[in-house]
Amino acid sequence: MDHIQRLKKDYPWIQTPVVVGAPMRLIALAEMAVEITKAGGIGFLGAGTSDISLPTQLQKVQTLLSSSPPLLTRSSTLPIGIGFINWGADLASSLPHIQQFRPAAVWFFSPSSPSSLQDWTQKTRQASPDTKIWIQVGSVAEALAALDVQPDVLVVQGTDAGGHGLARGAGLLPLFPEVQDAVTHACQSANRERPILIAAGGVVEARSAAAALTLGAEGVVLGTRLLASHEAVISPGYKKEVLRASDGGQTTVRTKVYDDIRGTTGWADTYNGRGVINRSFEDAVAGMSVEENKKLYGEEMEKGDSGWGPEARMTTYAGTGVGLVREIMGAGEIVGEVREGARRVAEGLKL
Amino acid sequence: MDHIQRLKKDYPWIQTPVVVGAPMRLIALAEMAVEITKAGGIGFLGAGTSDISLPTQLQKVQTLLSSSPPLLTRSSTLPIGIGFINWGADLASSLPHIQQFRPAAVWFFSPSSPSSLQDWTQKTRQASPDTKIWIQVGSVAEALAALDVQPDVLVVQGTDAGGHGLARGAGLLPLFPEVQDAVTHACQSANRERPILIAAGGVVEARSAAAALTLGAEGVVLGTRLLASHEAVISPGYKKEVLRASDGGQTTVRTKVYDDIRGTTGWADTYNGRGVINRSFEDAVAGMSVEENKKLYGEEMEKGDSGWGPEARMTTYAGTGVGLVREIMGAGEIVGEVREGARRVAEGLKL
Repeated sequence: MDHIQRLKKDYPWIQTPVVVGAPMRLIALAEMAVEITKAGGIGFLGAGTSDISLPTQLQKVQTLLSSSPPLLTRSSTLPIGIGFINWGADLASSLPHIQQFRPAAVWFFSPSSPSSLQDWTQKTRQASPDTKIWIQVGSVAEALAALDVQPDVLVVQGTDAGGHGLARGAGLLPLFPEVQDAVTHACQSANRERPILIAAGGVVEARSAAAALTLGAEGVVLGTRLLASHEAVISPGYKKEVLRASDGGQTTVRTKVYDDIRGTTGWADTYNGRGVINRSFEDAVAGMSVEENKKLYGEEMEKGDSGWGPEARMTTYAGTGVGLVREIMGAGEIVGEVREGARRVAEGLKL
Repeated sequence: MDHIQRLKKDYPWIQTPVVVGAPMRLIALAEMAVEITKAGGIGFLGAGTSDISLPTQLQKVQTLLSSSPPLLTRSSTLPIGIGFINWGADLASSLPHIQQFRPAAVWFFSPSSPSSLQDWTQKTRQASPDTKIWIQVGSVAEALAALDVQPDVLVVQGTDAGGHGLARGAGLLPLFPEVQDAVTHACQSANRERPILIAAGGVVEARSAAAALTLGAEGVVLGTRLLASHEAVISPGYKKEVLRASDGGQTTVRTKVYDDIRGTTGWADTYNGRGVINRSFEDAVAGMSVEENKKLYGEEMEKGDSGWGPEARMTTYAGTGVGLVREIMGAGEIVGEVREGARRVAEGLKL
């Protein structure tokens, strides 16, 4: 069975090329996940480091889905996924909900150790055998290491992505093919089926989606683009800043500064986050202490929507493709536009 | 006339999709440029900051070309280009050779000021009206600024590229479409034809080339890949290190360290270079003084081919796609493989 057929078997409601919604922590919740799935994509809840009430959100997903015609699913799983930031998420308290709601997929990212990843994977499979295991990786080394747990899907994230990822990295253009070769070779040597490979990081609209699929990806992930959706659970000030920012290679940066001032501890040294450059970052570079920067950040939180922007201090996590995000739309509408747009780009391609 | 037709008119010997050889300073000389051009690509001499004898190399190009059947050219220009690093190259001494040899193109990169770029462009056009002006840019802002001199071609370089480029940047996946939109819009507003857009940075083999063309690029540039060619004027130790290095997102880095230890001054603060991580870089990060690092680099130069490698000190400029470079081939053979491979990838693409 080829990889696209496997995707269609495992997630029978999808339309191809498949567009996936990134499990953005505290941003991608029930409404976004459901709208993406209803549009033929695969929606994920951003459970992060166990920062949301899983039963509340999963119950909401069920309720939202029940108001429209039932979607074809595999073994009656819930047609959305749950994304965990594994170093901080709580396995024991998550398992009963995975067992009860049986999501179509779980997405693991940044586990504290190989054995922790083993643990998450084995226990999830025991709790819900039909739930597929997705693992996010950012390098060839991480991809090969992840094969130990026989993931169903590898999400290959390039360094253009917004939010957290490996501090050092490559864009998808060189990264994806090298991962594809390495993983294919390793699986052939082990006489195993290779995982489905999905591309993330820098995919924003039709052209970048079509290019990622041309690289060989079996699907693409949208993150930054979905910040400008009605369903994204962020302030209007954040959305406005996403629409304003352009030329993201110059105006975003990968840094630990935003974690420092927000008091987010726990990420490994090799990880940081990409966000739009603002006063917090500029001041940190100019030598301001974390303490002072934190205090000013705290004050900025009082300001509401004017707290975002290049001269302000609220964090705008976003990828380098932020300049291609130009209007706020429905998450489902975005998924349809990117999917059909990518198909048109591919059809028009004549070399 | 569409952009591909314009390419074929301006460089009538090419085969499409067109593959261009980066004007790697002191590395891409007459042999490489000629082999690329003979294979249906566009070869460039890497004149850098006027570091080579232009008449010697251009004469050599003529001699090498004369030994094979004549290529179709436009207005009898020489069917190769010359690449300059403009902040350091000498315009006055270059012009007579441009006038005499009439290269099909010149490639400008990192001028010291907008007026300097104006100067180079105007005087080149006076000296050789049929020579096309290519300008390398690394951001939307640089692309829009370059339009002032009405370039024939913009080379859009993503941050995955090896060697020098903007210190901050985006990969081609998000960068190229945003530049394409901005440039198209600006040219439409000014009622001018838009320049041809060529993609550089992270293009190594068939898949990445096909993806760049899917983004909308009218041609692609190879740099890192051509380091592993018979014609690259570098030590076997350098080539060996290019073949060895893999997972370039993790094992290469953009830094000023290699300029510091090599005594290269002159690059603007906003530029640096990407190379494979080695002792010089690790020591610099660990706090070693530039003076001491320079001294050790000087000593390493005595070692010959063993001076390259992760535990050694000679600089291996290379892009994040270095892991996809697996064997030393002829430059012409590489061009043919990437072009035909990209076509096959595009033909096989079914979304």
